[in-house]
Amino acid sequence: MSKRLHIFTTGGTIDKVYFDALSEFKIGEPAMDAILREANVGFTYDLTSLMKKDSLELTDADREAIRAAVNASDAKHILITHGTDTMAKTAEVLKDISDKTIVLTGAMQPARLRSTDAIFNVGFALSAAQLCAPGVYIAMNGRVFEAGAVRKDREAGKFVAD
Amino acid sequence: MSKRLHIFTTGGTIDKVYFDALSEFKIGEPAMDAILREANVGFTYDLTSLMKKDSLELTDADREAIRAAVNASDAKHILITHGTDTMAKTAEVLKDISDKTIVLTGAMQPARLRSTDAIFNVGFALSAAQLCAPGVYIAMNGRVFEAGAVRKDREAGKFVAD
Amino acid sequence: MSKRLHIFTTGGTIDKVYFDALSEFKIGEPAMDAILREANVGFTYDLTSLMKKDSLELTDADREAIRAAVNASDAKHILITHGTDTMAKTAEVLKDISDKTIVLTGAMQPARLRSTDAIFNVGFALSAAQLCAPGVYIAMNGRVFEAGAVRKDREAGKFVAD
Amino acid sequence: MSKRLHIFTTGGTIDKVYFDALSEFKIGEPAMDAILREANVGFTYDLTSLMKKDSLELTDADREAIRAAVNASDAKHILITHGTDTMAKTAEVLKDISDKTIVLTGAMQPARLRSTDAIFNVGFALSAAQLCAPGVYIAMNGRVFEAGAVRKDREAGKFVAD
Repeated sequence: MSKRLHIFTTGGTIDKVYFDALSEFKIGEPAMDAILREANVGFTYDLTSLMKKDSLELTDADREAIRAAVNASDAKHILITHGTDTMAKTAEVLKDISDKTIVLTGAMQPARLRSTDAIFNVGFALSAAQLCAPGVYIAMNGRVFEAGAVRKDREAGKFVAD
Repeated sequence: MSKRLHIFTTGGTIDKVYFDALSEFKIGEPAMDAILREANVGFTYDLTSLMKKDSLELTDADREAIRAAVNASDAKHILITHGTDTMAKTAEVLKDISDKTIVLTGAMQPARLRSTDAIFNVGFALSAAQLCAPGVYIAMNGRVFEAGAVRKDREAGKFVAD
Repeated sequence: MSKRLHIFTTGGTIDKVYFDALSEFKIGEPAMDAILREANVGFTYDLTSLMKKDSLELTDADREAIRAAVNASDAKHILITHGTDTMAKTAEVLKDISDKTIVLTGAMQPARLRSTDAIFNVGFALSAAQLCAPGVYIAMNGRVFEAGAVRKDREAGKFVAD
Repeated sequence: MSKRLHIFTTGGTIDKVYFDALSEFKIGEPAMDAILREANVGFTYDLTSLMKKDSLELTDADREAIRAAVNASDAKHILITHGTDTMAKTAEVLKDISDKTIVLTGAMQPARLRSTDAIFNVGFALSAAQLCAPGVYIAMNGRVFEAGAVRKDREAGKFVAD
């Protein structure tokens, strides 16, 4: 099986930047490219920016677009960066794709922050995307969860088994 | 199989700090603790600092000490941070431990640098340590290599299959 | 004249942190303390957190409270961190304090970002607070402006002489 | 008097980068450019890289070259980045230039480190270079010292009045 990897970005906290003009954080360009360059990765990959949305704003149509894009990719290994609030929901939508290893990750703190979980999470999830059996997974907080058996615990600020 | 994880640090570039008094970089306290805290990991682990050495200075006795410590751990999942120059050699020494998943990682740029591969690598390697079958692996540059089939390509600044 | 320095923080972008629970940036604890520790400064200072507000939310009563606090300080050298949008307005309110050197600064990008103007600005402003003649100044973008002759150019993302 | 500023870099810890191939830190490209871009400074300046040396390696000829370059500049405001160990010595050599404000600064920790005094120091020193009367100064640890009355206290890791 080809180790080829396709990375899709959909927005979320991981990609937030601070706009002084608006005095607020908005989704910016995907941080993925900078993260992979800094990590000096030795594998080839495709990188597709699907949308730039807070995951609370993702519609059913958006999720369907993500599903269609993943399905259309000829890569067997898929990484998706996604806002954390509805990551579990999108993971469930992807479950009918049976022949790929699909891993979703994101961050609680933007990648542009000096202190962030984003870089660790991307590293962690990329490993899972290469190593896990076909299926849909969420890789957060240093753990790999199966889609359908995971939720974000807002109070704890962590993903936990459901 | 228990997912319990034991992390050993041995030094290497990943842990280098700058000592103004000496005008040079030396191995400092392991960066691992700060990395895991920042990543807000949701698994439990043991953390043991075995030595603080440049990997070019590691002796056969040091490697034997690493092997003995890993062997004595009751964890089935082992992560070792290690200097990159002789990481492949230490990996080979560990190959006679057959019932554990042992992953070595490190960094080309110190974790204390603003731009570093250390955090990505630790995330990537921790995932591999949880997911790979028992055996000895090197996780560097976003790839998982089996011990005995990997070397550091100094010119390219990357680990490659051997 | 004593070189004693009193630093007041009032909030603004410089102190913003990202709250995942709210999916937004809010004013957090002042970044000043961390900045001064990292800079390993060799002078003594008092540090007072007056308020934690976006400068667009500062009321006349807030400005009066800032004025009263600065006036009551027995230090001759004053640094105030402040949101950028109404920094020029607060500077004008302080102009009737005639026997102190008062310098306002802030940041266009939060100090907690990996890439920020906050640390440079604090360093720059602290120097101005020590060196300028009594009066009220804004120290931003590597320049010292006199109160009453400066405005924020939102488009350019810079303070300019007015 | 023109506020025009000329910045000279000579090397030192501030510009150190980590070379994995050598397993050591060496002077790299000046960090100044990146620092000024990140600070989004609103003044014009000239930037000249004179040498890339640890200050312990600076010879009398090097100091004479620095003196000549500063003397030849038509700017009245001069900032020099310099290694800390012999910064005080170079400052003394520059004392016969009487019509310029010359400020030396540097860092105890490389600018490329995640935690560094470099950015603060450059901000602080740039302010001093604009504000001080003609003369030669060292701006370190948040203080402005006159040349000839300052030394580096290695134990304390700080510059102190001599």
